[in-house]
Amino acid sequence: MPVVSVTFEPGGAVVPTPPGTSLLKAAQTAGIEITSTCGGRGRCTSCRIKFVSGSIPPPTIMDELQLGDDLVREGFRLSCQTVAAEPVTVQVAPPLTEEAFQILGAEQGIAAQRIVIDAGVTKRSVTVALPREEHHQTSDAEELAKAAGLHAPALPLELLRNLPAILRETKGEVTVATFGDRLLSVEAGDAAALVYGLAIDVGTTSVVTTLMELTSGEVLGSVGSLNPQAVFGGDLMSRIAFAQFNPANLRKLQARITTLLNEQIEEVCQTSGVLPQWIYKVVVVGNSCMHHVLLGIDPSYLGLAPYAPVLRHPLILPARELRLRLPHAIVCFLPIVAGFVGADAVAVALATRIGDSPEIRIAVDIGTNGEAIMGSRDRLLASSAPAGPALEGAQIRNGMRAAHGAVDKVSIEEDVRCHVLGETAPLGICGSGLLDAIAGMLDAGILDWTGLIQVEGRGRLPQKLRERVHMLGEERRFVLVEKGESGSGQEIVLTQDDVRQVQLAKGAIASGVIMLQRIMGVPTSEIAELMLAGGFGNYLSIRSALRIGLIPPLPEDRIRYVGNAAALGAQMCLMSETERARATHLAGWIEHISLAAHPDFQNVFVEAMNFPRSAPEA
Amino acid sequence: MPVVSVTFEPGGAVVPTPPGTSLLKAAQTAGIEITSTCGGRGRCTSCRIKFVSGSIPPPTIMDELQLGDDLVREGFRLSCQTVAAEPVTVQVAPPLTEEAFQILGAEQGIAAQRIVIDAGVTKRSVTVALPREEHHQTSDAEELAKAAGLHAPALPLELLRNLPAILRETKGEVTVATFGDRLLSVEAGDAAALVYGLAIDVGTTSVVTTLMELTSGEVLGSVGSLNPQAVFGGDLMSRIAFAQFNPANLRKLQARITTLLNEQIEEVCQTSGVLPQWIYKVVVVGNSCMHHVLLGIDPSYLGLAPYAPVLRHPLILPARELRLRLPHAIVCFLPIVAGFVGADAVAVALATRIGDSPEIRIAVDIGTNGEAIMGSRDRLLASSAPAGPALEGAQIRNGMRAAHGAVDKVSIEEDVRCHVLGETAPLGICGSGLLDAIAGMLDAGILDWTGLIQVEGRGRLPQKLRERVHMLGEERRFVLVEKGESGSGQEIVLTQDDVRQVQLAKGAIASGVIMLQRIMGVPTSEIAELMLAGGFGNYLSIRSALRIGLIPPLPEDRIRYVGNAAALGAQMCLMSETERARATHLAGWIEHISLAAHPDFQNVFVEAMNFPRSAPEA
Repeated sequence: MPVVSVTFEPGGAVVPTPPGTSLLKAAQTAGIEITSTCGGRGRCTSCRIKFVSGSIPPPTIMDELQLGDDLVREGFRLSCQTVAAEPVTVQVAPPLTEEAFQILGAEQGIAAQRIVIDAGVTKRSVTVALPREEHHQTSDAEELAKAAGLHAPALPLELLRNLPAILRETKGEVTVATFGDRLLSVEAGDAAALVYGLAIDVGTTSVVTTLMELTSGEVLGSVGSLNPQAVFGGDLMSRIAFAQFNPANLRKLQARITTLLNEQIEEVCQTSGVLPQWIYKVVVVGNSCMHHVLLGIDPSYLGLAPYAPVLRHPLILPARELRLRLPHAIVCFLPIVAGFVGADAVAVALATRIGDSPEIRIAVDIGTNGEAIMGSRDRLLASSAPAGPALEGAQIRNGMRAAHGAVDKVSIEEDVRCHVLGETAPLGICGSGLLDAIAGMLDAGILDWTGLIQVEGRGRLPQKLRERVHMLGEERRFVLVEKGESGSGQEIVLTQDDVRQVQLAKGAIASGVIMLQRIMGVPTSEIAELMLAGGFGNYLSIRSALRIGLIPPLPEDRIRYVGNAAALGAQMCLMSETERARATHLAGWIEHISLAAHPDFQNVFVEAMNFPRSAPEA
Repeated sequence: MPVVSVTFEPGGAVVPTPPGTSLLKAAQTAGIEITSTCGGRGRCTSCRIKFVSGSIPPPTIMDELQLGDDLVREGFRLSCQTVAAEPVTVQVAPPLTEEAFQILGAEQGIAAQRIVIDAGVTKRSVTVALPREEHHQTSDAEELAKAAGLHAPALPLELLRNLPAILRETKGEVTVATFGDRLLSVEAGDAAALVYGLAIDVGTTSVVTTLMELTSGEVLGSVGSLNPQAVFGGDLMSRIAFAQFNPANLRKLQARITTLLNEQIEEVCQTSGVLPQWIYKVVVVGNSCMHHVLLGIDPSYLGLAPYAPVLRHPLILPARELRLRLPHAIVCFLPIVAGFVGADAVAVALATRIGDSPEIRIAVDIGTNGEAIMGSRDRLLASSAPAGPALEGAQIRNGMRAAHGAVDKVSIEEDVRCHVLGETAPLGICGSGLLDAIAGMLDAGILDWTGLIQVEGRGRLPQKLRERVHMLGEERRFVLVEKGESGSGQEIVLTQDDVRQVQLAKGAIASGVIMLQRIMGVPTSEIAELMLAGGFGNYLSIRSALRIGLIPPLPEDRIRYVGNAAALGAQMCLMSETERARATHLAGWIEHISLAAHPDFQNVFVEAMNFPRSAPEA
């Protein structure tokens, strides 16, 4: 049998493949993991590959539909739709480079959980007896309730308003959708098969909406965007301050996110050929501030000690109350643990199953706020640290988001080598590049453990590195990219201030973890696993994270990426009421550790801003 | 002891009264019934009198406040505020001539029911513990729920939106209002004493809103207006047809009534010095069409056989969902029996206590629709007949509402004598005058029992009457008021068509009662009491009603006026949750008799359009 060689990157495994075999199947046969959420049916983008070498086959319709023209042109394909024909090298699941920056879908990173599908939405055809006799005392509502097995007084007024016309146009043959005892819709004819839902992850920086089919769990599409509230402040505190300033500002923040969600809903529905009225359930996760603002609740006191949330319990609301253009849907908000340990942290705890673990594990969600959850099935602690946006490339001289032109990987040996996103000239540096650069600078002796750029000691450096370290006026600088090599014609540098910003951010995250370890009395050696979650967590180099002390000095094999665990938690709750109930249980069970209020914290934080004096042993 | 003579009209009782005694007290001492809802405190208008002769005393502040400038100028006073000084003649409780027409408040006619005050609204000061510690996992909602004895997830989102600021401004010292498990408001400081409610009677023709203090039952004010939906149709069927025509019309009808209610709320609050935020409970009664339209529910099928309502169960909604400008109130809609036996009929049954009666009684609510309720504690039947607006003076050549210039009483002996409302020249004839006129014409032989005006037989009439009966072209006419005596310079006549309109209306109402008697097997002799309810029912002459056969031929002492029983029923439910529960029970218990669907009905109706051949024996 003739075979062709298919090389899968990263890893470089060469798989001899019979021509005509799909690359997904080839990889799976060879034990190479490619996530395939939709089961190889071309209905999601999880099994995407990108052609690195060899001739790129023409796209299928599914490629076009799922990936869009731009990605197809860039060499992206779905591995389930692409068959082996000649020797090629492909990259598995490359990040989907969004227009502005990378948004991580929830489908990556974490192994699919075994979720029993139980979305709670029931949709079925019923025959409603129309009142036919004057003497018989009844009403449309009573007859509908009888047919649907509900109690008439529980029917929402909204659905009764146009009920008479629907019942008479259809001669009583309607489809009813229910969620528990709630009637969600009364629709003409038999539409029982169309049942969809949305999992929405409202982050401070990015918002991801994923459309799922509620009977199969199939992901039909996902759309990510920057949170448009960012114009009123990049981090939580500045948005809370904006809302505090006057009550109209809360409405502005709310309108921004509602508008974005409606746009995302429209887009994901259009792309997938799903009508908004077929969506019955929505699960929203987000930190407490995003949660409050979306609900129109004053978040002012989330920003003032003791940072108390207004409510913590799970909520279920009709989507129309949030002005979402989903006529039939209810929206479930997951519960909150504390002011800065929000529904997103609950979703991370749920998705990582950290509360079921016999051994102690840690999940660190690295975002604008860094939440750490530590524990096992015996006890779970959570804390939150305001890392700020430095790790996302903000407040850094030449920082940028992980978009085209961003230096996302850096290695420093005899000289600096940069990898740039989008195969273009570098324009700036993003978070993962920043971490690599600082790790490399530490190893090379360009930085000392206190974070000082070693301008005075540069004589000890190799020639090429030495030239990159200098003072400009009062400022210590390290030139990452020379003028001539940069896309803008300007140097890309790391300044002393940039290093300090990273130190503040990593100090916040690291000290959160250290505090949890201290309170629980858990030395690093007893930590069975550390999970890196969140959009950024998924792209950083574990080695660099260890080198700069962002995470505790664990062996690399005890550290793994778990992707956007918050979004995955939302999807789990969307697909399963059992999981939603677990989330509520978890929220009540997780103990919130307030870092700022703890007497040791200041010392730990100051210490954690320093870098480890040497690289941890591999 | 010197006394002055006070004559009370109607009845003409002369009461010797010590100077300085209030006229209310004088009347009560003499056994003359003057309703005094507020207990003689000048807080309502129920004990009003009008000076017929003698000098009118200067008004007190209470007179001004309760009656307003116009009525005070017309000689109205409150009997509780007016003291005897010199001989006078006063009329007791004259109708309050509104700008457009008489609206009957609920306070008249029916003896006050013994209602245990139990409005269901609880308002009390509580101290909410503010979250003070970061480690302590709690939220504003949980602390509020704990203080108020509620369950946090049951707190309405609306009230949580601004909760943090209220709690912190007041340091947690707030007043909470609840209705059962519902939280209605969280208010700053101690406002526990201010608890008010509204009883609203939404009639096809008129709308009455009454403000009550919920701990005492005191009526603080009442405002009545014409239903502004009338521009889209005077009777129910034409309004339903208007709503059927296109969906936007329903919204127009709804907007009209909502706007009116907001105006009435503003007015009654302003007059009484009550702020809308102190109103916590509203009870609404109305026929099924008014009920549906106010709720924004399509009423189309109320107008098509089998006239089924969309819902019948009692409803409780936040006032803001109806766009009523009552920030804290809930609105209770009483239940419905059937399409044409609405919440108003339930309220009549409740207020008349007809379901508690050991003997068989009948309540007839005479309005645009005539509802009849018959029965005892053993069985209750109800029917509804579309009487049309003739008895309200509409669709009558010289008909008018019971406003200034309306002939409201007529006697016919040797000649015609008319009484005119507002002591002015006559402009037209209102319903009660119409009934008197037809009764008099029957007795005088101007009409025969089939309703034909006896132009041919006028020779037998007394001279003055004879001149009033003639043909004009093809039209048989009876001149009630000559040109020279009328305010408009035009004759006021009753035409043959007018008589036919009255026959249709009275036939509808009478046949409803006859059908109920037939179905229950109750001869007229076994009817213990007949109660005339409704705005119009209260003004008609019982003698005339008997003469034309509008009501069964009972002895006059078995017939009584019960005033606006529907509005009173609403007040009872406002003041007492026990009564509201009774209303729900009654609605489920009353049997609806569909007249049109009954095989005997057409014959009974045709027969009932005729007049009795002779006056019933007194």
